[in-house]
Formats: sequence, C-alpha cells, structure tokens
Amino acid sequence: LAQRLDGIPPTIFTTMSALAVRTGSVNLGQGFPDDDGPAGMLEAAQRAIAAGHNQYAPGTGVPPLREAIARHQQRHYGLDVDPDTQVTVTTGCTEAVAAALLGLVDPGDEVVVLEPYYDSYVAMIQMAGGVRRPVTLRSPDFRLDLDDLRAAVTPRTRFVLLNSPHNPTGTVLTRAELKAVADLAIEHDLVVITDEVYEHLVFDDAEHVPIATLPGMWERTLTLSSAGKSYSVTGWKIGWATGPAHLVDAVTAAKQWLSFSSGTPAQHAVAHALDHEADFPRRLAQTLQGHRDLLCEGLVEAGLTPRVPEGTYFALTDVGDLGWADGMEFCTSLPERAGVVAIPCQVFHDDQDAGRHLVRWAFCKEQSVIEDGLVRLQKAD
Amino acid sequence: LAQRLDGIPPTIFTTMSALAVRTGSVNLGQGFPDDDGPAGMLEAAQRAIAAGHNQYAPGTGVPPLREAIARHQQRHYGLDVDPDTQVTVTTGCTEAVAAALLGLVDPGDEVVVLEPYYDSYVAMIQMAGGVRRPVTLRSPDFRLDLDDLRAAVTPRTRFVLLNSPHNPTGTVLTRAELKAVADLAIEHDLVVITDEVYEHLVFDDAEHVPIATLPGMWERTLTLSSAGKSYSVTGWKIGWATGPAHLVDAVTAAKQWLSFSSGTPAQHAVAHALDHEADFPRRLAQTLQGHRDLLCEGLVEAGLTPRVPEGTYFALTDVGDLGWADGMEFCTSLPERAGVVAIPCQVFHDDQDAGRHLVRWAFCKEQSVIEDGLVRLQKAD
Ligand SMILES: CSCCC(=O)C(=O)O
Ligand SMILES: CSCCC(=O)C(=O)O
Repeated sequence: LAQRLDGIPPTIFTTMSALAVRTGSVNLGQGFPDDDGPAGMLEAAQRAIAAGHNQYAPGTGVPPLREAIARHQQRHYGLDVDPDTQVTVTTGCTEAVAAALLGLVDPGDEVVVLEPYYDSYVAMIQMAGGVRRPVTLRSPDFRLDLDDLRAAVTPRTRFVLLNSPHNPTGTVLTRAELKAVADLAIEHDLVVITDEVYEHLVFDDAEHVPIATLPGMWERTLTLSSAGKSYSVTGWKIGWATGPAHLVDAVTAAKQWLSFSSGTPAQHAVAHALDHEADFPRRLAQTLQGHRDLLCEGLVEAGLTPRVPEGTYFALTDVGDLGWADGMEFCTSLPERAGVVAIPCQVFHDDQDAGRHLVRWAFCKEQSVIEDGLVRLQKAD
Repeated sequence: LAQRLDGIPPTIFTTMSALAVRTGSVNLGQGFPDDDGPAGMLEAAQRAIAAGHNQYAPGTGVPPLREAIARHQQRHYGLDVDPDTQVTVTTGCTEAVAAALLGLVDPGDEVVVLEPYYDSYVAMIQMAGGVRRPVTLRSPDFRLDLDDLRAAVTPRTRFVLLNSPHNPTGTVLTRAELKAVADLAIEHDLVVITDEVYEHLVFDDAEHVPIATLPGMWERTLTLSSAGKSYSVTGWKIGWATGPAHLVDAVTAAKQWLSFSSGTPAQHAVAHALDHEADFPRRLAQTLQGHRDLLCEGLVEAGLTPRVPEGTYFALTDVGDLGWADGMEFCTSLPERAGVVAIPCQVFHDDQDAGRHLVRWAFCKEQSVIEDGLVRLQKAD
C-alpha cells in the first residue's frame, strides 16, 4: 500500500453496512434511504438509456445537466452561475471532494475542517499531502466556536473545508456562523470548499445558507453538492461543483484523470429531476422531519438524549447516557445485543475526549424500519 | 492549481471531441461507439432502476457483478478469481488506473510504461509522485523492443503499467512479448498493472493473452478492464480490477475515497450482460474488423499508410505520408480542411522523434460515419 494511505482504515460506512448484512441487523448506520427518488426521475433514467445516452459524457458533464444545475443555483439561492465555465459534474460529491483536494491542495497546505469530520475529508487531505486543522463542534449543542475557528488558522492555512448541514452532528450553520467563516476566509485569503449535499434536508425553521452567497465569497468558494441525498439516488453517483471558473477548472483538471466522466444516463435523469421534480427535495425534508421526530423520541425511550438535528439524515447521541464509555464498543456489540447497526463517531474525531461517546443514527429509512430498530434498541441489554 | 497537476493539459480526448462538436466535424477521434451495447443489457439497466437498485453499492461492487466478473475470468482465461476478495468494481477503467496508482505508487517509484501511452497513465503517475520510464513501440511495426524494455528497468523500478491490446498503436502483445515482460517482472520483483479494456476487441488471428495467466504472474499482476469497450457503454463507467487480494485491496483502499462506490443500476446490468450476453463482444469484434478494413482502405486512398491494428478501436498513421511534419498541426487544421477530427499522438510521447508524425483514427463508429469521414478526408486539400 502506498504511504499516502498509511493509517487510513476502510471507511466506517463500508465496515458497518457489511456488519449489518452479516448480522441481519436493522441498518441505522450508513446514510442511504429505503425509498428511491421520484418516479418521473426514474423514468427519465430509463428513457435516457433507451434513447441512446450511453456513451462518454463530456468531462464537465452533459450540457442539459450543467444548465439545470445553474438554474437550480439561481432559483434557490439567486446565484448567477455560467453552465459552461462555472459548473463541473462529478461522480457523486465524494469525487467532487477528492478532485477539489487533489486539484488544489499542495503538500504542507493546511485545511481547516469541522470535527467530527466526514471520513473522506481526512483521507483525501492526507492523500493530497495536506494537513488538517480540526475545529470541533462540541456537545451538547454542537455549534461552531469562533475562537476555536480563529485559533485553527495559521500562516500555512489555505483552505476551509466546510460542511453544512453538518454530518454527523445535524448542525446547520447559521448565517452568523457562516459570516464568521467568511470574514476569516477573506482576512486570510482562504479558499472555502463547502460540501452542501444536505442543502435541501433542513427542518423546522433552519435555513440553509450557501456560504458562496455571502458578500465577497463567490470568488473564493467552491460549492459541492449532489443528487444522491436531495433526490434519494445515492447509487447514481452524480454530484457537481460550482464556483468561479478558476476553482471549478481545478476540479475538472483532477477529475478527468480520476474517472474521466460520470454516468451519462443518470446525468440526463438528474437534469430532468432538477427542473421537473423541483419540489421533491422539500417534500422529502418534510417526510424526514417526521422520521427524525420518531427516531429521536424512540432514542429517548431507549435512555438516550439525542441532539435533535436541524438538518441531514442523522441524529447524534452520547452513549454515556447508557453507561458506555466508548461508542465503538457500543456499536460493535450492538448487532448482537439488539440487532441494530449505528455509526461510532470517534473515528470522525482527532479529539477523542469530544468524540469517544458519540454514536450516530440514520433516520432516512422507512418508518417501519425505524420503528423496528427502535423496538430492538429498547429491548437491548 | 496544485503542483501535482503542473504541466498536465486537459485530456486530448476532451479537447478534440469539443472541437468536433464546435466544427460539426465527423469525430474519428475519441474512442466511443455510435451503437450502444446489446438490447438485453440496456433492458437489464432499465429493470434495475425500476427494481430499486438505486442506492449505494458496496465499495467493492454489488455481489452479482463481482461474481459475474469472476465467471468471466474463468470462462475466457481459466483464471480462478474469488469474487469476494480478488475483484473490486471501479468507475470505469480510468478510476481503476487512478486508484491502482494512488493505492500503490509512492513518490520516487519508477513505473515502466509503453509509449505512446494512454494519457491518464502519465497524469496519474505524476499525481502519485511516481516517475515514468517509457518503452517506445516504434513504427513501422510498433512491437515491443526487449532491449528497450530491459533498459527501462532501474533499481527504483517497482511497476510495469502495461496495456494490450495497445491504444493507440493497435498492437496486441504476443505471448512471447508478454513472457519477456513477465520474466523481467519476476527477476526484478515488479508489480504489473495491466489495462486490458480491449481484451475482446482483437482481429484476424491475434490472441489476447492476459499476462496474469503466465506462470508466476498471478501473484504480482493487477488486471484492469471494463464494460465500456466490450459492451459498447462507455458512458456507464463500470470497470474492475482483479488479482491477488493484496493488490485488489490497494485499489479499493484508494477508490473508496475517490468515488466511494460506482453506479448501482449499471453494475446490475453489466452483471447480466457478462453472463447472458457473453457472445456480444465477439460479435462486436467481427463488426469492428470490417470497420477497420474499411477505414484502413480509405486511409490508403487518402494517401496514408495505416498500421493495420491487431486490436482496439484505432488505426495509426504517419502524416509524413502526406507531407506533414507535425501531427498536431495536421489535426488542428483538419476540421477546417476536411471536417474530420482525429487524435494527434505526439501528446502520448516523450520521444517526439517517435511520435510527432503519428495520428490516430477511430473505427468504432457506424459504417456510414466512417465512410463520410473518409470521403471528406479524400477531398481535403
Ligand atoms: C458515501 S457512504 C456514507 C453515506 C453518508 O453520507 C453517511 O452515512 O454519512
Ligand atoms: C476516456 S476518453 C478516451 C477514450 C479512449 O479510450 C480513447 O479514445 O483512447
């Protein structure tokens, strides 16, 4: 194995989903929905295959998808995005993250990143030779601490890798928090790479604010998203990056060697969905909010006090509530004790004091699956 | 842009396909077919979408595809491949190449590679911090020179990155040539990474021999292939790596951060095709052989002397035949002079003496398209 992968384990999502399959457990771990996206989009994919959209797409994506992404950014956020130079399509947001980091980060560059972090960030920062500078969102409220944020920036910092709505805490950064990140980015001339795959999955009165919309930020922000979460097709692997041409070009420059281009029929179907199923993500968020409440109430009944998330698919708990010191031990024994799989969040932390107790539960599953999981959990020893 | 991309231009395939679109030229450049793969496979993809195969696949691929790939290796080459530990699915062969190099190559490692090289090899070797050691296949016969091969190996050499059938020369390495590579790999303890995407597209009495089948080679060979070329779905982006677990694991280890997993519905359809459309690639090769002959005869009429390829989608010419010193100038002016796009091969060479004159023509297009291209070419000034 090459040194750039030293100490990087298999992604926890693979490990825990394999454990769920092996033990026949209810999988409240990896974030993928039980229900597929809108019928009109699934039909559009079938039509695209029948219509002969089966050969290489351009590296930056098929024009109808780039145009639909630009319209989406305009409609939702008032952003003026040129589909020809300011959008590039990727193989899911995972590839957007990989290509952005490989395309922009030089060895020794420091990247400020929210902790708990999404695991691919850490792996790809290391693979790019960068150095991560975590800023920890701490229990019980998991908000951004502005002093910690400022303290993370050094003369070698060149990037902030942000994600809001934040996985796994469910925090949606407020406009004020984002303004603090923006001020810092402008002051220190940093580029912000922002993973907004849960942009439409926010609850109650939380509002998703793309940091690219803040004054002075468009020019220094690379915004990443995907169809997987917004349209419940995590297996289609269609994501994108938008931003100023010089940042988008860096993504394309790396991406062309990682996969050359992304799946053609799915690109056409997502283009269709962005325009013709524009309301689906909002309805999905409404459904998810009910599932969130169901899950959180059940977790309380099981003796846990979840952090009620403002967005994403996930609720976070401190298994100290049940007398467990270690979330990994809790999760490793949970299939046997309860027939349920959840995600131990210590693997998303450098700061083990902050992370050791944290366990994440997914509520993107069917109601009956969540109910089944909760019954099992409540019966666990 | 990060330094790892220094001096690496956009892939020539993107540049030339964009030129074809912009100028309305017949595109005999980028290698993708006009006709999609078998109807049964296209229907299987539509069924997979309807049946709900739309969420994340496992990182190594869905079990039915891994099993079908293992059966394919057994049926065609007598190789015993364990679908659980010796196969991993990738986002096309491009991602297999990227993940293999990022997963295995450390900075300073030397990689022996055939020249003219496929452009992603050079980009990814550089991005992995490796050093390429080209071995040039030279006109007029473009065979492997065993002295050049031996001379390319130094004490820092750790890998041979092979491709046979070879793009862009159309050379299919003989068993004797492969034996020489194998002997060298065993003598110097090298790992062979072999890109065999044109494995089924060989003509006349040429035989594709996977180097993994030679004595002593399985343990040190990572074999890469894909459905794109064999099943005429270059836009589906389903490839794979097979080999001993320690090499396949390195691909998975890198790939999980590049795209996490590959398109789920297409994986199911390719699994179906490998088993139930097993004869398609052979029939495709027969059709392509006719197209090859059509193209080569037409190139002769246009004043060029093509190297008649033993495999792949491509025929190579020396535009010195028409008095051109520089293939890039020839190709750049060709849309205006003739309304045709072809690929200048000097970008695939370090050795400009060997490569400057070479231009590649694709014959994976419909007969009428090839005929149209040839008529235009014969009329060019
Ligand atoms: C790419 S696999 C993980 C899916 C996901 O976003 C999560 O579970 O956090
Ligand atoms: C991945 S784009 C290039 C397609 C191809 O294999 C070729 O034209 O050589």
